[in-house]
Amino acid sequence: MFPTYDVIVVGAGHAGCEAAIAAANLGAKVLLATMNMQTIAQMSCNPAMGGVGKGQIVREIDAMGGYSGIVTDETMVQFRLLNMSKGPAMWSPRAQSDRMAFALNWREKLEAHPNVDFWQEMVTGLVLKDGRAAGVRTGLGLEIPGRSVVLTNGTFLNGIIHIGEKQFGGGRAGERAASGITEQLVELGFESGRMKTGTPARLDGRTLDYSRMEIQPGDENPGRFSYTDTPELRDQLPCYMTYTSEAVHATLREGFDRSPMFNGRIRGLGPRYCPSIEDKIDRFAGRDRHQLFVEPEGRNTCEIYVNGFSSSLPEDVQYKALRKIEGFENAKMFRPGYAIEYDFFPPTQLNATLETRRVPRLYFAGQINGTTGYEEAGCQGMMAGINAALAVQEREPVVLKRSEAYIGVLIDDLINKGTKEPYRMFTSRAEYRILLRQDDADLRLTPLAAALGVANMDARMARVDEKRRGVAAIQEELRNHSVSPDQLNGFLAASGTAPLKQGVKLSSVLTRPEMSLAGLARELPALANFLAPYDAEILNLAEVTMKYEGYIDRERETVHKMNRLEGIKLSAAFDYETLSNLSKEARQKLNDLKPATIGQASRISGVSPADVSVLLIHLGR
Amino acid sequence: MFPTYDVIVVGAGHAGCEAAIAAANLGAKVLLATMNMQTIAQMSCNPAMGGVGKGQIVREIDAMGGYSGIVTDETMVQFRLLNMSKGPAMWSPRAQSDRMAFALNWREKLEAHPNVDFWQEMVTGLVLKDGRAAGVRTGLGLEIPGRSVVLTNGTFLNGIIHIGEKQFGGGRAGERAASGITEQLVELGFESGRMKTGTPARLDGRTLDYSRMEIQPGDENPGRFSYTDTPELRDQLPCYMTYTSEAVHATLREGFDRSPMFNGRIRGLGPRYCPSIEDKIDRFAGRDRHQLFVEPEGRNTCEIYVNGFSSSLPEDVQYKALRKIEGFENAKMFRPGYAIEYDFFPPTQLNATLETRRVPRLYFAGQINGTTGYEEAGCQGMMAGINAALAVQEREPVVLKRSEAYIGVLIDDLINKGTKEPYRMFTSRAEYRILLRQDDADLRLTPLAAALGVANMDARMARVDEKRRGVAAIQEELRNHSVSPDQLNGFLAASGTAPLKQGVKLSSVLTRPEMSLAGLARELPALANFLAPYDAEILNLAEVTMKYEGYIDRERETVHKMNRLEGIKLSAAFDYETLSNLSKEARQKLNDLKPATIGQASRISGVSPADVSVLLIHLGR
Ligand SMILES: Cc1cc2nc3c(=O)[nH]c(=O)nc-3n(C[C@H](O)[C@H](O)[C@H](O)COP(=O)(O)OP(=O)(O)OC[C@H]3O[C@@H](n4cnc5c(N)ncnc54)[C@H](O)[C@@H]3O)c2cc1C
Ligand SMILES: Cc1cc2nc3c(=O)[nH]c(=O)nc-3n(C[C@H](O)[C@H](O)[C@H](O)COP(=O)(O)OP(=O)(O)OC[C@H]3O[C@@H](n4cnc5c(N)ncnc54)[C@H](O)[C@@H]3O)c2cc1C
Repeated sequence: MFPTYDVIVVGAGHAGCEAAIAAANLGAKVLLATMNMQTIAQMSCNPAMGGVGKGQIVREIDAMGGYSGIVTDETMVQFRLLNMSKGPAMWSPRAQSDRMAFALNWREKLEAHPNVDFWQEMVTGLVLKDGRAAGVRTGLGLEIPGRSVVLTNGTFLNGIIHIGEKQFGGGRAGERAASGITEQLVELGFESGRMKTGTPARLDGRTLDYSRMEIQPGDENPGRFSYTDTPELRDQLPCYMTYTSEAVHATLREGFDRSPMFNGRIRGLGPRYCPSIEDKIDRFAGRDRHQLFVEPEGRNTCEIYVNGFSSSLPEDVQYKALRKIEGFENAKMFRPGYAIEYDFFPPTQLNATLETRRVPRLYFAGQINGTTGYEEAGCQGMMAGINAALAVQEREPVVLKRSEAYIGVLIDDLINKGTKEPYRMFTSRAEYRILLRQDDADLRLTPLAAALGVANMDARMARVDEKRRGVAAIQEELRNHSVSPDQLNGFLAASGTAPLKQGVKLSSVLTRPEMSLAGLARELPALANFLAPYDAEILNLAEVTMKYEGYIDRERETVHKMNRLEGIKLSAAFDYETLSNLSKEARQKLNDLKPATIGQASRISGVSPADVSVLLIHLGR
Repeated sequence: MFPTYDVIVVGAGHAGCEAAIAAANLGAKVLLATMNMQTIAQMSCNPAMGGVGKGQIVREIDAMGGYSGIVTDETMVQFRLLNMSKGPAMWSPRAQSDRMAFALNWREKLEAHPNVDFWQEMVTGLVLKDGRAAGVRTGLGLEIPGRSVVLTNGTFLNGIIHIGEKQFGGGRAGERAASGITEQLVELGFESGRMKTGTPARLDGRTLDYSRMEIQPGDENPGRFSYTDTPELRDQLPCYMTYTSEAVHATLREGFDRSPMFNGRIRGLGPRYCPSIEDKIDRFAGRDRHQLFVEPEGRNTCEIYVNGFSSSLPEDVQYKALRKIEGFENAKMFRPGYAIEYDFFPPTQLNATLETRRVPRLYFAGQINGTTGYEEAGCQGMMAGINAALAVQEREPVVLKRSEAYIGVLIDDLINKGTKEPYRMFTSRAEYRILLRQDDADLRLTPLAAALGVANMDARMARVDEKRRGVAAIQEELRNHSVSPDQLNGFLAASGTAPLKQGVKLSSVLTRPEMSLAGLARELPALANFLAPYDAEILNLAEVTMKYEGYIDRERETVHKMNRLEGIKLSAAFDYETLSNLSKEARQKLNDLKPATIGQASRISGVSPADVSVLLIHLGR
């Protein structure tokens, strides 16, 4: 009934969709098998993409030819570039999407791809041949043959939903859980664990009093995620802000004894950085209020998402507490918040390609790896899809470095450090933040994708070249042209920075914190003239790279040093117990994880710089 | 947590949506409680509305202020007026809808109504007070208080999906079944039964060869369902026709021994008039082919619905057989067809208001009553919603007569005759077909709805008046103006009908089958002039009522006679066993069903005209 697919992707969440399209765009024949074709690319929790650390990932996905950025651009209702008051390494795009439009758009794009087939059914197990993944088995007992399999089951594996003292099986509100896969993998020797995550109540927007909240409009000049020509966002919808209060907290506390989190019924660990409201109250007992974002679920619905109020307290407690929040006095709920517990597989069981160590041609991506978030899921899906396709094509795999992409940081963290609680991205996880900015993910990654042969990269590469040329020309102009004290001292004084004593290059003036390219151009008509042909993106990139040149160069240097360590390979066959100078913990971890390079070894928690030296000496370096 | 609602509607299928909006438009405060808000108004089976007998129902729903017609008009991709070669009683509108757009549009309309609240959860039982319905109980154990409850659970009550030898619980592919309600109702003394229905495989439209099929475009001048000003349909999508063959049948027969239908695993009876393909092959063994309609699921999806190929044979058999169909040689499936078995409640347990006899203020509507089809469900929902609202408002209920509406026929059939197999509408079920045409449902029903106080009826009533006035004026014109042999004999000869011998009224010429209003107007400039101000709908209605005046008058007369029987009330307390002249079967059925009138009694199967005479004599008539 089925041809032998190159790549079978199980699950059509964010990881699965990106995996399918990435493999398809490398020419692989793909089957996307998912429980319900009506929930393709469903946003399980808040209808938003991006945010700090996460927005960068979406741009990286886009730069490599993934679709999350384009789909978001085409369906968003609000866009903001967060952290604009901080340095450019921190600038992070975030968009509110129309939930239904987002899912429909993804489905249309997948259907439009000739290499993607679909099968609607629950996958209950893997087919193995010679110890390799060779297909999947479905609830109907069908065997679908494939040369590789990517599992992206999200929160569905033996999912249990908790609300107060009640619990029932489910993969998401109103959807059923998946079984069979965990059981088989555990039998195959995989280690599995439990995690949990939560979601807030959904409210009826018609019952909220927005006049009692602070409005939070989108950016005046909304940007976008994609480096392609996605449509401009018009008619943005506002979000609103409100706050909990002591009264709200007191009401919530009344339900603590019935909370599945506090009475131990939930064993899985939840996301520390996306805590439930009861968690926040418990952990930050000193805080007398917490901020809440009141976010629309789409253009044509009154459904409202209460960002910051995730909860698994009994529904009556949630309701009573919600009604004490300013603006929510008459709120009606569509459904209460809930927590969900699900199986994950500690990602230290994976290679850097996201292939499992135990079963070749089997890849894991997304929440199944212990991460949380659409962006984290999407980028893993993309990398797993690329690597599965490459493996089937018997080509070299692709692994992004920590210095190349947040995606590299994420995967490197996962496979080397593992994670005890749902892993989400932060800028602080990246040691080379200034190299991993949201403004240049295309320069970093598009050439790599183009070299791989990802489909439709020509226009993207042309744009990359245009950006590069533009930035180089602007830099050259500023480095070669001097400006005299006469020309600029008035402006410098007005800007609160020291006057020039003699002529200096424009580039050196620009490095002053008070100066900007736009400001200088307003003062210097010749400069304005020179810059006129370049668009905002190129101007911005030129400015950032010149203003932060020092930092950028310094980080590049560190990267080079580290890359040398990264280049030093370790043998998977080596027994670290034979190196008695290593600490006991290092020996054990190194034997467990078998890092491929000194670089990887150095990032394993428990492997100290002293241990790294021992390894280097042993290798004769 | 909840106010006391006037009407709680359980389930947001076609019955539930119409019930909610009907009650809301009568001023009732409504809660629509449904398992998953993302599946509101989901079309479980084919994405089409209307058809023979069913199209009339949609127009009747619209005439009474229901929304099915408007939603269809706003989301359809193809429209056809079927049976145009037959008399106007048979003309039946049918539209293909965009499945996703249809569901979204309904949800938006419900959300836009201030009287409709939502709750997303499974309802597991009723709350009763003093023997009356007083609310519902949910999976979370919540009690939601209400003054009336409308159950519209569709195919979800203890639903079991069958494919070949496999079976699993579910209310629809990928959705879970509902439990609790049947059990409680049976405990309360209700009788329940099992029925089954089925759906065909969904195919990947990209793999079909349309050049090998017959195209079936929409009407050149597409009509609409609603009597309001819904947008004109542009850019219609075509459907296609293809056929099964002996080879296809032979392949299907190979799976018969594994068919849940033939080996007795399915106990519930299926819809005789919407049979599965294996049923058709079995019952019509002489037919060497069956027609299939290849229908798009929407504007932006490649998913295809194979109308006529419903099946619960094993998926590999379905697949093998599909690939032998012309144009399907390379077809890929998204999912196989399946059959579903579910609980229903024999509708003889209901009053004509759709209230249950056993539990006041409890109403049943839709598939739960043993019907099949969106249209049948929608109209029951509307009537139940109206009657629930009226009951709460302590107003007189509304019952449509068999002579007023297909809706009246449907409900009268259900409550008096019950049904052993899924009941669907046909024109042949109506004895007064010529009075129940699709062109005048508004004249029949809109005044009734307006008198009830249904919201937003003003523009509709204005239009009804305009139509009435227009038709009357045209009739008068044609009845008063004579035409001479000179003026028309050439045209009559060319049309193949006898010449006039003397001047006659235009109205009498029009009654000739060969004549049409448009044809006459082309010949007679004065008539053309007179008709010019009237729109097509009015012209059509005037023409139909004049051409079929004889039939219409005759049926009206019969109706009057029957109405007299209808006026003769029977006491619910009367014991028919005391009338020994009644047949045994009649005594038993009458005691079981306790019809409210002689008219109802006369339509009970097993109650003969002789029995009716006995009743009339007993009542002294
Ligand atoms: C209740 C809830 C709250 C959340 N809260 C947050 C939060 O606060 N912050 C945050 O960042 N993230 C949150 N998330 C997580 C976020 O939704 C996920 O990280 C993201 O959706 C994961 O993407 P994924 O592709 O890995 O899996 P999912 O989006 O879960 O998609 C999995 C897909 O696989 C399908 N599937 C699963 N098993 C099978 C099978 N056996 N056969 C066929 N198909 C299968 C499912 O139908 C689904 O389409 C939450 C998720 C849930 C459910
Ligand atoms: C597989 C299949 C094949 C079909 N084939 C045909 C066909 O060939 N021809 C034809 O005319 N018709 C067919 N139908 C029937 C058609 O879909 C139904 O007649 C119509 O949808 C019935 O409408 P309804 O409103 O009664 O129920 P549904 O459309 O089934 O809607 C029921 C709603 O109630 C909700 N619900 C159910 N139980 C609960 C609960 N306990 N708590 C909360 N919510 C609940 C569900 O989520 C759903 O939203 C088919 C249906 C199915 C499932």
